[in-house]
Amino acid sequence: MSLSEFSIIERYFYKDKFENSQTRLGIGDDCALLAVPEGYELAVTTDTMVEGIHFFPDVAPEALAHKLLAVNLSDLASMGAQPIAVLLNLTLPKVDSEWLKNFSDSFFNLTQYFNVDLVGGDTTKGPLSLSLQAMGLVPVGRALKRSNARSGDLIYVTGCIGDAGLGLKIQKDEYPYSQECKQILKQFNQPMPRINEGLKLRDYASSCIDISDGLLADLGHILKASGLGARIDWELIPLSNQVEKYIDETTDWQMPLNAGDDYELCFTVSPEKTELIDIECHEIGVIESSQTFHLYKNGQRQEIGKHGFKHFY
Amino acid sequence: MSLSEFSIIERYFYKDKFENSQTRLGIGDDCALLAVPEGYELAVTTDTMVEGIHFFPDVAPEALAHKLLAVNLSDLASMGAQPIAVLLNLTLPKVDSEWLKNFSDSFFNLTQYFNVDLVGGDTTKGPLSLSLQAMGLVPVGRALKRSNARSGDLIYVTGCIGDAGLGLKIQKDEYPYSQECKQILKQFNQPMPRINEGLKLRDYASSCIDISDGLLADLGHILKASGLGARIDWELIPLSNQVEKYIDETTDWQMPLNAGDDYELCFTVSPEKTELIDIECHEIGVIESSQTFHLYKNGQRQEIGKHGFKHFY
Repeated sequence: MSLSEFSIIERYFYKDKFENSQTRLGIGDDCALLAVPEGYELAVTTDTMVEGIHFFPDVAPEALAHKLLAVNLSDLASMGAQPIAVLLNLTLPKVDSEWLKNFSDSFFNLTQYFNVDLVGGDTTKGPLSLSLQAMGLVPVGRALKRSNARSGDLIYVTGCIGDAGLGLKIQKDEYPYSQECKQILKQFNQPMPRINEGLKLRDYASSCIDISDGLLADLGHILKASGLGARIDWELIPLSNQVEKYIDETTDWQMPLNAGDDYELCFTVSPEKTELIDIECHEIGVIESSQTFHLYKNGQRQEIGKHGFKHFY
Repeated sequence: MSLSEFSIIERYFYKDKFENSQTRLGIGDDCALLAVPEGYELAVTTDTMVEGIHFFPDVAPEALAHKLLAVNLSDLASMGAQPIAVLLNLTLPKVDSEWLKNFSDSFFNLTQYFNVDLVGGDTTKGPLSLSLQAMGLVPVGRALKRSNARSGDLIYVTGCIGDAGLGLKIQKDEYPYSQECKQILKQFNQPMPRINEGLKLRDYASSCIDISDGLLADLGHILKASGLGARIDWELIPLSNQVEKYIDETTDWQMPLNAGDDYELCFTVSPEKTELIDIECHEIGVIESSQTFHLYKNGQRQEIGKHGFKHFY
C-alpha cells in the first residue's frame, strides 16, 4: 500500500508548522532532525500496543491515539524529561478515513498540548498494531533513574491509585458502570502523563518510575535497581471514592496494588528534601536497607516478596 | 507475557557494555539516555516490517534481524548520519528460544559492526511484526536532504541496481536459482547499509536518498522535493552480470528501474565538486530545471512522468 501510505501521511499526519523549537526537519525525508541544546541529554523510549493484547478490538481511535502517546510520554515524565518529538508506526488492516481522522485529531490534540512534533514514522498494512517512540530533553546528569533511591527516602505517589484498574473492570463488564465512574473510565482510557510533575521532581526526587505495571511491581523495579527494600502502608495509598466503594463491595483490597495503567508517578525523596515538594502527592512509605518489601495493613505486616516481585506480574 | 518479556530482554537483548560513547543509559529504565555532542543534530528514523507484507512467513530470523536494522541504518546513511543507537519493538506470536537466539545474534553482529547500541524497546505478544527506530549524529546543517539538488548536478548511484529485485524474484520462484545468484540473494536478504559512503558524501553531495522503493521512485522523491527534473541514461545504470543475464532472457529491462530494496544510495553532486568524489559510484544522469523526468534508452527518449511518479508505486 505504498501509494496509500503517502496519501495517509499527507492527509492525516503531516503538519506544515513545528510545535517544538528543537525540531529542525520533520516528516518528508529519510530521517527527521532534532537539535539537542548544550547541557542536555536525549531521553528516548518506545512502546507497542497490539489489538487484543493491549486494547479491545472495538476501541475508539481517539482513545487509542491518546493512550499510545500518553504511555510513552509518561515514560519521559518518569525520567524528568521534557518531550520534544515522537515517531509513529501504524500498522492497519485497512484504510478507514473516519478512523484515521479521529485517530489523528486526538493524536495531535495531545501532541499540541505538550508542544511535541510528530517528526516521522511508518504506515503499513497488517494486523492493527501501533508503536510510538518518544524523545525528550533532560539536563545532563539530572534524569530521574530507578536506581538512585537511598535507605530512609520517603516514597510518594501522584494522583489516586487503582482508578485505571477499576476502569478496566468496568470496560470488561466485571463491575457495573455508574455515572460516578465516568472519571474512572477516563483515567483508564485517557490517562494524562505527569510531564509537569516529572520536571519539578528533578529538583528533589532521588528516583522515579511511572505506574504502568502496578504500584507494587513498579516500586519493585525501583527497589531492585537500587538494591534496597521498602515498607509501605496500605492506609496511606490514595484511593478515589469509587475504588474505596469497589473495595467495600468486593473486599478486593489488593486491586490498587497490582492493577496497572494508572500512569501516576511513584518517586522517592530524602527526608531533608521533602520540604521542597511542590506537587500534589501522597507519602505511602519509606525505603529500607533490608532488601525486603513489606506492606502494612491494619497494623499487620504482610510479606510481599523481593527480587522483582515476579508473582505480581 | 510480562514475565516472559523481562526474561526475553535479559536473555537475548541485554548487553552490559555499550558500543557507542554517546550512550549514557541503556536498557533497564523508563528511558534510555543519549548524549549529542555540541555542533551535532540527531537524525531519527523508523521502519516497520510485518509478516506477509514485508517478509515471508518462513524467513530466517538471522535475515530478518539483519534487514530490519539495515533498512533503518540505510536511512541514516542517506542523510549522512553516523548511527549511535536503536530501539526495537518486537511483537511475537510465541516465545521460541532458538528463533530469538538466532535473531539476536544476527542483530548484534550488525550493531557491533557499526558501533550501535540497542538502548531500549518493547517485547509483546501478537502477530509477528517488528519496528526499529535508529538514531544517528550529523553535524548541524550538514545533513543530506532530498530537497537540495540543483539544476546541472550530476546523478550518481552506489553499487549495482536491481540485484535485490532479482533476489526477490528468485525467492518467489519467479526466476531460477543458480550458484551465481548467491550474491544476489544476499543483497536481497542482507543488504549492507552504505554508512561510510553517506559520511563521505556530506563533503560534496547536494542531495541523497537510499533506494528502497526503486531507483525511479526514489530519484523521483529528490526531484519532487527539489522542484526539478532529470535525465537519466539507461545504459549508464550499473547492473550486475546476473541482472544483465536476467534482462537478456526476459527483456524485462525496466526491472532495475522499479524494483526496490537495493539500499544503495542515489545522490547528486554539482559539476565543480565531482572531483571530490572518493567512493565507488556510477554517474547515471543529470538534474534538469525542466521539472520533467526523462529516461534515454538506445538514444530514445522515454517519458517517465512527474510529481511523485505515482504509477511506479
